[in-house]
Amino acid sequence: MVKITLPSGDTKEYTNNISVLEAAKEISPSLAKKTVFATVNGIDQPLNFKLENDANLVLHTKEEEASLNSLRATASFFLGHAIKSFNSEAVLGDCGFSDDGFYYDSDIPSGQISADDLPAITEILNKDIKEKSTLTSIHTSIDDAINEFKDNTYKVELLKSLKVKDVYINSWNGFKDFSTVPLYTNYDQIKYFKLLFVAGAYFLGKSSNKMFQRVAGTAFFSQKELDEDEEKREIARSHDHRVLGQQLDLFFVDPKIGAGLPYWLPKGATIRRIVERYIIDKEVAAGYEHVYTPVLANLDLYKTSGHWAHYREDMFPPMDMGDDELLELRPMNCPSHIEVYKHKPRSYRDLPFRIAELGMMHRYEKSGALSGLQRVREMTLNDGHTFVALDQIQDEFKKVLKLMMEVYRDFDIKDYKFRLSYRDKANTEKYFDDDEMWNRSQSMLKGAMDDLGLDYYEAEGEAAFYGPKLDVQTKTAMGNEETMSTIQLDFMQPERFKLTYVGADGEDHRPVMIHRGIVGTMERFVSYLIEIYMGAFPTWLAPIQVDVIPVNNEHHSDYAKKIEDDLKKSGLRVQTDLRNEKMNYKIRESQTQKIPYTLIVGDNEKNAGEVTVRQYGKEEQLTMSEESFIKLISEDVANFSRETK
Amino acid sequence: MVKITLPSGDTKEYTNNISVLEAAKEISPSLAKKTVFATVNGIDQPLNFKLENDANLVLHTKEEEASLNSLRATASFFLGHAIKSFNSEAVLGDCGFSDDGFYYDSDIPSGQISADDLPAITEILNKDIKEKSTLTSIHTSIDDAINEFKDNTYKVELLKSLKVKDVYINSWNGFKDFSTVPLYTNYDQIKYFKLLFVAGAYFLGKSSNKMFQRVAGTAFFSQKELDEDEEKREIARSHDHRVLGQQLDLFFVDPKIGAGLPYWLPKGATIRRIVERYIIDKEVAAGYEHVYTPVLANLDLYKTSGHWAHYREDMFPPMDMGDDELLELRPMNCPSHIEVYKHKPRSYRDLPFRIAELGMMHRYEKSGALSGLQRVREMTLNDGHTFVALDQIQDEFKKVLKLMMEVYRDFDIKDYKFRLSYRDKANTEKYFDDDEMWNRSQSMLKGAMDDLGLDYYEAEGEAAFYGPKLDVQTKTAMGNEETMSTIQLDFMQPERFKLTYVGADGEDHRPVMIHRGIVGTMERFVSYLIEIYMGAFPTWLAPIQVDVIPVNNEHHSDYAKKIEDDLKKSGLRVQTDLRNEKMNYKIRESQTQKIPYTLIVGDNEKNAGEVTVRQYGKEEQLTMSEESFIKLISEDVANFSRETK
Repeated sequence: MVKITLPSGDTKEYTNNISVLEAAKEISPSLAKKTVFATVNGIDQPLNFKLENDANLVLHTKEEEASLNSLRATASFFLGHAIKSFNSEAVLGDCGFSDDGFYYDSDIPSGQISADDLPAITEILNKDIKEKSTLTSIHTSIDDAINEFKDNTYKVELLKSLKVKDVYINSWNGFKDFSTVPLYTNYDQIKYFKLLFVAGAYFLGKSSNKMFQRVAGTAFFSQKELDEDEEKREIARSHDHRVLGQQLDLFFVDPKIGAGLPYWLPKGATIRRIVERYIIDKEVAAGYEHVYTPVLANLDLYKTSGHWAHYREDMFPPMDMGDDELLELRPMNCPSHIEVYKHKPRSYRDLPFRIAELGMMHRYEKSGALSGLQRVREMTLNDGHTFVALDQIQDEFKKVLKLMMEVYRDFDIKDYKFRLSYRDKANTEKYFDDDEMWNRSQSMLKGAMDDLGLDYYEAEGEAAFYGPKLDVQTKTAMGNEETMSTIQLDFMQPERFKLTYVGADGEDHRPVMIHRGIVGTMERFVSYLIEIYMGAFPTWLAPIQVDVIPVNNEHHSDYAKKIEDDLKKSGLRVQTDLRNEKMNYKIRESQTQKIPYTLIVGDNEKNAGEVTVRQYGKEEQLTMSEESFIKLISEDVANFSRETK
Repeated sequence: MVKITLPSGDTKEYTNNISVLEAAKEISPSLAKKTVFATVNGIDQPLNFKLENDANLVLHTKEEEASLNSLRATASFFLGHAIKSFNSEAVLGDCGFSDDGFYYDSDIPSGQISADDLPAITEILNKDIKEKSTLTSIHTSIDDAINEFKDNTYKVELLKSLKVKDVYINSWNGFKDFSTVPLYTNYDQIKYFKLLFVAGAYFLGKSSNKMFQRVAGTAFFSQKELDEDEEKREIARSHDHRVLGQQLDLFFVDPKIGAGLPYWLPKGATIRRIVERYIIDKEVAAGYEHVYTPVLANLDLYKTSGHWAHYREDMFPPMDMGDDELLELRPMNCPSHIEVYKHKPRSYRDLPFRIAELGMMHRYEKSGALSGLQRVREMTLNDGHTFVALDQIQDEFKKVLKLMMEVYRDFDIKDYKFRLSYRDKANTEKYFDDDEMWNRSQSMLKGAMDDLGLDYYEAEGEAAFYGPKLDVQTKTAMGNEETMSTIQLDFMQPERFKLTYVGADGEDHRPVMIHRGIVGTMERFVSYLIEIYMGAFPTWLAPIQVDVIPVNNEHHSDYAKKIEDDLKKSGLRVQTDLRNEKMNYKIRESQTQKIPYTLIVGDNEKNAGEVTVRQYGKEEQLTMSEESFIKLISEDVANFSRETK
């Protein structure tokens, strides 16, 4: 017999070897139904844990968050088994529960899991969960677990990275995995779950590591909670640039033509063009020299730069042109800009020498990691490289930050964090091996941020291979963190390319390079704009700024076209809706398309030379002269207004 | 004895078997020295031709153009021998004399001849010419010659393409070739020659054929003529965009980083950006929808389009991405625009549907064929594709021509010819095989040109593989013909991609595609602009529009900077020259850099708020208020003025 003490102080005596679940049933069958796991003498244990000695027992029921985590960890465990059943080649990586669900990361050498595979995996999951078999979840030390999983280096790495001392080794039907919480051994109760999406996930969350395919889902204890969650996701989807991109005809990606290679449709292209012209003009005014450099170069260039040694797995395969000529699609623009620097002898009078470009680059991402405009294989980066003397670093760093802030103000970007990204010291393969350089440049960046009094957090293993950086991190509608802007210090490449400038002393000196991107890639930036504005672009960015709708096509088309022509002459983007549809239908359509200004013109307007103006998202209408409208909208555009007022 | 009748009617009797040269010597040793070849009984014969029968004899001396051709044909013959000596693998193609020199085309499978090889080849030539050996040049029928050269398919093709019935088979030291004129058998007289350059040359001048490496040179009968010619070439070089591109810091190409892959330096990039913005704005106003589409696609796309079958040799090697994914750098943008068309169902109301892009493409050109910005491997094309109904072709064709003429007016392009480019019927490998399609579309283009009353010439074998085209041909400073603009009809690709639109009748119809380029590639167009303007760009295109020079740095720098700031606020591109140099030196530099306006500011200007204006290429100076100057230059820019007035 064992004596069990409950949190209330009550004690109960049971036969030896009774399980937690049986003990709960003895207390109350309804309680047993709600119990997910228990804490036995301070250690969390699963329902089928045998009570062999006297113990303090705390039962954890479905209401508790820890129980939800246990449910989700269990769903993750079965997901791992289902992925293995789906493709036995799958190498399993990270897994478990998250704030809003569960996930399993895997890597299939011969192929990849895509969203199309989710129904088949769900089917396996459902079958497994219905199978009557014993799930064990045994509490053990990290060291034992490392020994148990020694054949899977990823699991070993994951175990080593944990900050706890113990884990659970779980087994079911010969499948084995570990978790940080005890599993819900009554696994037939996993009824309210859903697989949601597939996405790329770097191992241990570090972009310098291998990318796995993450299958993510969510699970709850009731259908009601699952439904509510679905509704919440629906709202997030309404911000999702992929959904809006389709609704508003902004872009498309067709893996049949090319995975991760977006086609910008006319409206999306218009937004991109405005962004491009804006940032070029802004940079030229700030003293940058804009260039165009080729997307291809001899592979040797990337051997010299170090990309081939440190960044090869993100690069495209070289093209053999014959005659020992190997051409490579560039993964970054810096070597090209270095060539511009090198083209002429430079003197201290030329510094800071700021080169900028909308530079197209190509990066190899696994197809499962690709997503709309956010993760692509071909991208155009708002790139810039400043060559400075040592004593100009801090001043230039501040200038870049100032430019960045001005741009953020114009685009109304407010939700971001500064991240100081350092190397991972242990990873000498990924990072250029020069302790002094890293220490010097990391502390230089940190010093500058401290001087400026800006808040930031630090992240190891997020630096570029050549140096540390300051990243500006934003979140996508789906909650993923992305880098928008970056300022990077580089002492390495000037060294490798033997860059020099003649100082005031007449001697040769080595410049320092600052790599910087303000709005990042056109792809990611426009996807971000789509999400923050939910497709309702401020007037200066809207692909169509004005929709002119005649009250009656027969009588007012001419006047509508005249208004269109006048507005176009003022440089505005205008369309006239002459389709054979009712006016109210057209007005609704104009709202669906989120066009900032809808102008309605009928007899009154025509006779008075006026227009009736309706702004996006507003019910009220205002009638004004054509000139007043042009003045109104022109000010709106010039002010980068966030809202149609 | 043979009786020879001279043009004067005089007759002379000679021993049988006397050569033409000996006969000339008998008349006069000085005449003999000047004689290059002779006409014997109406047939041109070389100097060592034996007079075996009575004959009418006309001696041709160095003054005659035909003699110069003979000299140059002889130089070409020896050049062929020299190339073979230089590299025995060389396959010999076309050769002979031209308007201004001679050339030999060859193809070396394992490598290519570059300009660096010219000294070595010249050395071989000089050695050969000094060698005492017999050069024979025997008149024979084309058929005999074809038999003689049957082992070289190129020589056979060349012989077949000739419009004459007879040629000369020439032999020297075992080397054999043919020519259309008798050679100058006194070849030791080839003293005044020079190898000039290496360039690519399509076999038989058709861009659909193999490209050879052309070594070109020139030869004369005197040093004086050679010197004069050099001077003429010097002037041509002063128009050469490669020379100006370097002088004015516009661009560079470094084969060590990538052959045919230009780097646009800040000033060249500024010109390109102005051109790009100009043409996009122009096209958007003309109803084109601008897009951005990827430079990469699955190879399958180019299999469907027919490029892989008909255009493969101009394409880059595909990249194997694993998982059976082959990505290809696009050689043309049309398939991408077809995908944009296909993205949604189209109706007759959508037609003409005009898609445009500054589309980057890659074409494989042999490195020897590459030249500055004119022949490159990576290019950005001002491309457009209009999808029209059959009955809209002519109207759309005229609209494109109208747009083209407006653009030509703005850029002051006057020196061009229209070329109707047809297929080469015999070449079914290069051209899509559908007689009806070709006949229909070729006559459609011809009809449209005739309707418009425009002059044109016709060229077989210059069409695109999918259809005929109207090309606008211009000449480079070096005299090469290049295509600037093009309008192409395409019935084939809509068929291959199964494109449709719903007609007014509710049925599916197939659209016709019109491919068009107005300013062509940015690379070739800017190179053309550099050449026609000789680097002195009109104000609206000039990378630096205004150079502000203080009379005295110490006293007038502030005022100069204030002027610079004011002008920049008016959207002008301005620099202030604050170098520690004399004012007059700076003014000269400003002229060397061909900056449209130089402003000189000293005490008087500063006190009166004025500027002293000097326009490029003019001596006179005019002092005016700052406002007047801004008004003057702004009008200049707005009017696309060709000259600084």
